[in-house]
Amino acid sequence: MRAHNLALVLQTVANSADPISRASVAGATGLTRATVSALVDDLVSGGLLTELAPPPRTGAGRPAVGLALAPGGPAGLGLEINVDYLAACVVDLTGAVRHRLVEHADQRPAGAAAALAGLGRLAQRAQDLADADGLAVAGAALAVPGLVTASGLVRVAPNLGWQDVDVLAQLRATPALADLPITVDNEANLAALGALGELRAEGGTPSFVYVSGEIGIGAGIVLDGVLYRGARGWSGEIGHLTVHPDGRPCRCGADGCLEQYAGLEAILREAGVTSVEQIRAPLTSASTALGIALAAVVNLLDVQTIVLGGIYPPLLPWLRDGIEAELGRRVLTADLAPVRLRAATLGPDAAMRGAAELVIRSVQEDPAAYLGRS
Amino acid sequence: MRAHNLALVLQTVANSADPISRASVAGATGLTRATVSALVDDLVSGGLLTELAPPPRTGAGRPAVGLALAPGGPAGLGLEINVDYLAACVVDLTGAVRHRLVEHADQRPAGAAAALAGLGRLAQRAQDLADADGLAVAGAALAVPGLVTASGLVRVAPNLGWQDVDVLAQLRATPALADLPITVDNEANLAALGALGELRAEGGTPSFVYVSGEIGIGAGIVLDGVLYRGARGWSGEIGHLTVHPDGRPCRCGADGCLEQYAGLEAILREAGVTSVEQIRAPLTSASTALGIALAAVVNLLDVQTIVLGGIYPPLLPWLRDGIEAELGRRVLTADLAPVRLRAATLGPDAAMRGAAELVIRSVQEDPAAYLGRS
Repeated sequence: MRAHNLALVLQTVANSADPISRASVAGATGLTRATVSALVDDLVSGGLLTELAPPPRTGAGRPAVGLALAPGGPAGLGLEINVDYLAACVVDLTGAVRHRLVEHADQRPAGAAAALAGLGRLAQRAQDLADADGLAVAGAALAVPGLVTASGLVRVAPNLGWQDVDVLAQLRATPALADLPITVDNEANLAALGALGELRAEGGTPSFVYVSGEIGIGAGIVLDGVLYRGARGWSGEIGHLTVHPDGRPCRCGADGCLEQYAGLEAILREAGVTSVEQIRAPLTSASTALGIALAAVVNLLDVQTIVLGGIYPPLLPWLRDGIEAELGRRVLTADLAPVRLRAATLGPDAAMRGAAELVIRSVQEDPAAYLGRS
Repeated sequence: MRAHNLALVLQTVANSADPISRASVAGATGLTRATVSALVDDLVSGGLLTELAPPPRTGAGRPAVGLALAPGGPAGLGLEINVDYLAACVVDLTGAVRHRLVEHADQRPAGAAAALAGLGRLAQRAQDLADADGLAVAGAALAVPGLVTASGLVRVAPNLGWQDVDVLAQLRATPALADLPITVDNEANLAALGALGELRAEGGTPSFVYVSGEIGIGAGIVLDGVLYRGARGWSGEIGHLTVHPDGRPCRCGADGCLEQYAGLEAILREAGVTSVEQIRAPLTSASTALGIALAAVVNLLDVQTIVLGGIYPPLLPWLRDGIEAELGRRVLTADLAPVRLRAATLGPDAAMRGAAELVIRSVQEDPAAYLGRS
């Protein structure tokens, strides 16, 4: 009961756009003012809430102290391994990114152990920076471009060349991560969770597909406001939708996968050089391939919104016409209601930001567990 | 409260494989025996439950009277309009099909009004047969091969050539349907609901895609045991997944849709005649096209089971190898866990059976509403 009420009070403060008084929290939750005050005291002493000085008096009465999420409280550590970079970020309880570390390097030649050791060093630096700020890292989440089991095993990450990698066991070797709760998830899923927060703020319970274009292409599927993971957690493998049945061979063993037309390496390989004139042809075939695959997604799932992330946002001006032409031709309901195509705003940081926010959200949803642990 | 408890008692009886005593219902629900007895009396007098004579004595004690769903109680009227047939069935509360009427005829030339008038006549005959059995039809559900809005308007049914047809208004002209609650839904969705009942009986909360192959091809998507309808109710348009981007033109305006390779007319057109030798080529291209499209479904949704219905079950021996070859090549996780391909057991009746069961289920879920109405 206390755990439930602690969460209720914390989330009421979190959902308030402005600092909110204890009296208003009582009003919004239906709890008595005495109960709210006791719970708030626990949340303040546990470092989850902070009390702000009252604003200057503008009218009659004594202005109330405002409650807000504590920027110095627990923080989430977001981690990402991708084909050509490692990344870590520290996001505080208010959602602000406090530190962001990115190392660009091809992670394929050295293999899984080296990549995980590199990520461990990056995580340690992020943890040290968090310590210096007085932030308590409450947990970590890791985004991986591959198929992850419920227990955190990476079954296969085709573009990294990984198979059955126990990332958790290897990350635990880093002191900063040894005792931390760590979640491992697919990078497109975590990026979709990041985008979900944004779209939810616009109201309603959005259904959308988040397409994360890097060297591989993954998708996170959000249906009625909930991330759909699939029977085994392996949904969203849009990069391997067939767009040309007799087309280019793919790393996965099939032919004509979307990745071979709209993935970063495919685009660069076709471009050869980087002048705008010469990049136009690969972007045409990339936009056609994306349009064919996204039409399949919309025909199957009836989502009205596609969010393009990863490498796509800056390319969208050159991709949009081609994608929309295919959607218009191939989506059965295109005449009834247009598909909305939008660029993700977080860019390549989306997955690690989503990872950090996953940690933050778990603290907000169960502050009693955090307070009991700390 | 009474409404909730009536439903609880009715569903406890419905979920019991054998007739169940009042005492066992009390034990299973946590209600007192007196409460259960009062509720059972209402359900028996309302025609929803029946009391069976005790079985012959085999041991000590007086054997209890067994409760079971009443085969003479409320019934569901399942209706279907498809491109080449009209159908109606009456399913009683126990799930038994009491009457089944099918009229084979191309519904396209005469248009929507004629088809709906024909269906009205069929519904009237089904209602008359139900009357003769002393069955009270509690409601009707209609399966349509098209996009249906929440209010029951058929926005578009490409293979019937329908656009914005208010089927409810026209069906109301039939006396049997004038005052009945009527639901309109996509035929693949209703067929998937029928298959869900079957798969649920095997245990767990199944995720699967039901593919309904007729002249058009639709799919019903069931995720974690729940039918996923999409943002606007238009999910599952697998017939318009692109399998050959520059392929055969489709009625929908796009090129290379699955329907143009694996739909009934496409198969027959290619076959020309019906000897097994001559039908082999179109079945090869149909199975390849199905495999490409189903691989997209599995890659996106991570469902482990595909149920093939409509015209496909009898063709499955000739389709399976081709479909499985494409699934093996194109599903990213094919090496990790095979996709299970199974034939629907209800065949072309699946949608109208699902429609009738939808009515039966609504009575089982809210018997108080039915008792209040009757």
